[in-house]
Amino acid sequence: MLKSIVEIPIKFSEVDSLRVVWHGNYVRYFEDGREAFGRQYGLGYLDIFENGNLAVPIVDLQVNFKRVLEYGDSAIIETLYVPTPAAKLIFEYKILSAKHGFVACTGKSTQVFMTPSTKELHITVPAYIEEWRKKWNLI
Amino acid sequence: MLKSIVEIPIKFSEVDSLRVVWHGNYVRYFEDGREAFGRQYGLGYLDIFENGNLAVPIVDLQVNFKRVLEYGDSAIIETLYVPTPAAKLIFEYKILSAKHGFVACTGKSTQVFMTPSTKELHITVPAYIEEWRKKWNLI
Amino acid sequence: MLKSIVEIPIKFSEVDSLRVVWHGNYVRYFEDGREAFGRQYGLGYLDIFENGNLAVPIVDLQVNFKRVLEYGDSAIIETLYVPTPAAKLIFEYKILSAKHGFVACTGKSTQVFMTPSTKELHITVPAYIEEWRKKWNLI
Amino acid sequence: MLKSIVEIPIKFSEVDSLRVVWHGNYVRYFEDGREAFGRQYGLGYLDIFENGNLAVPIVDLQVNFKRVLEYGDSAIIETLYVPTPAAKLIFEYKILSAKHGFVACTGKSTQVFMTPSTKELHITVPAYIEEWRKKWNLI
Repeated sequence: MLKSIVEIPIKFSEVDSLRVVWHGNYVRYFEDGREAFGRQYGLGYLDIFENGNLAVPIVDLQVNFKRVLEYGDSAIIETLYVPTPAAKLIFEYKILSAKHGFVACTGKSTQVFMTPSTKELHITVPAYIEEWRKKWNLI
Repeated sequence: MLKSIVEIPIKFSEVDSLRVVWHGNYVRYFEDGREAFGRQYGLGYLDIFENGNLAVPIVDLQVNFKRVLEYGDSAIIETLYVPTPAAKLIFEYKILSAKHGFVACTGKSTQVFMTPSTKELHITVPAYIEEWRKKWNLI
Repeated sequence: MLKSIVEIPIKFSEVDSLRVVWHGNYVRYFEDGREAFGRQYGLGYLDIFENGNLAVPIVDLQVNFKRVLEYGDSAIIETLYVPTPAAKLIFEYKILSAKHGFVACTGKSTQVFMTPSTKELHITVPAYIEEWRKKWNLI
Repeated sequence: MLKSIVEIPIKFSEVDSLRVVWHGNYVRYFEDGREAFGRQYGLGYLDIFENGNLAVPIVDLQVNFKRVLEYGDSAIIETLYVPTPAAKLIFEYKILSAKHGFVACTGKSTQVFMTPSTKELHITVPAYIEEWRKKWNLI
């Protein structure tokens, strides 16, 4: 089970007039989570792009808002890799309040593999991703 | 069937390094859509807040990305009110390319009703919303 | 004197916890202003990029905040082209409250000309810009 | 001389179609810098707000863009407190590339003191700020 955890202070600019994090910013936190995951497990956008000649556009996104985060707190972003044999990258997210410990938000994203120059989608798992999965014993 | 349509030029700052709208910005377009809907049908955040003493936090969000939007294009945002007897506000979204006509993205959001001062959620439909629904023959 | 005016409703996501537009968003309004100017006078980023093979990075930005804009209002963005013989693009901005008429913010930006592929800056005015200036009797 | 330094990875969503950080995001980095400064020296927005009953709106902002930051790099944000006897908060910023060491951007911001409930500006230095300045031997 591959999982990364990163803690990010909530920015003043991310809080709305109800004094809580604006809901759209959680999508940004999910990307913060994927980027932290990528740094930890060698699956960053640049790794995939430069070594695998792949882009990984998001095709599906689900977000469940459970409690609000306020300014002065930090978001603890847990990003969990969801194994799949398909030509997809699936992550699940859990965002917690650093101050209070509660779960503020959960979510899930699905990405596919695309060759940037041709914009062609890959129906089978690209070799670069196969190797990465093997390296981490995911298949 | 209540529906609003608004067209918004894509901003340079909304486009990412792959030269397409960054996926998180569609959540912003959904809010643009809700705001246009609110202006058209008298259900803006300020209407609800000032006249109904209610905030309407989003509790669930689903986004499906189908095709990409590029800089130089405009997003046509269709926002459809989904009738429900529940103490919820449900919208469905369709975002189209103004230039090419294709559907770039679809989505759905669910909001609940909260009293801002007490942060209390409403289990039954608030009177202000009941009246609004009656006015538009939604019940 | 070339000037464009565009009116843009203030978005809920642009307002901070003091219930006024977050100061950083005025930089976004300036770009909204430049984009409206570009559409009106044929000097959009894509025009410059595709026809002139130029990018126009911002090298200097000044912003003066005078009064606050609130949610429910619209920003009227005036963008004024400041003539210069130099190899620069200079704009001045005035942002007004649509509801109250007051000036909320003024500013100024300076851009230079760069060849995107080589990242080389232009010390003399590029031919494409010379022609655009002549077309509008700016020299 | 009070100064804070914070390093923040550049996010994918902050990079524009020229593959460099969009200029408006440096204003966000300045705020990241002020927030890091606030945490280090006890001058956070919440400290000022809750203990001093003050808001500190920005009235002037200057940004000089020198070189570009790219995805995969981190921004090192230096925030320098500029002493002044006036009823103002002045900061200077230097943003460097963590990877290459060069200065990408410099800037300066000026804030004033306001009572949030009345929106009244303070012409003289508020007691809370006087004490903070004394504590750090700034006068």
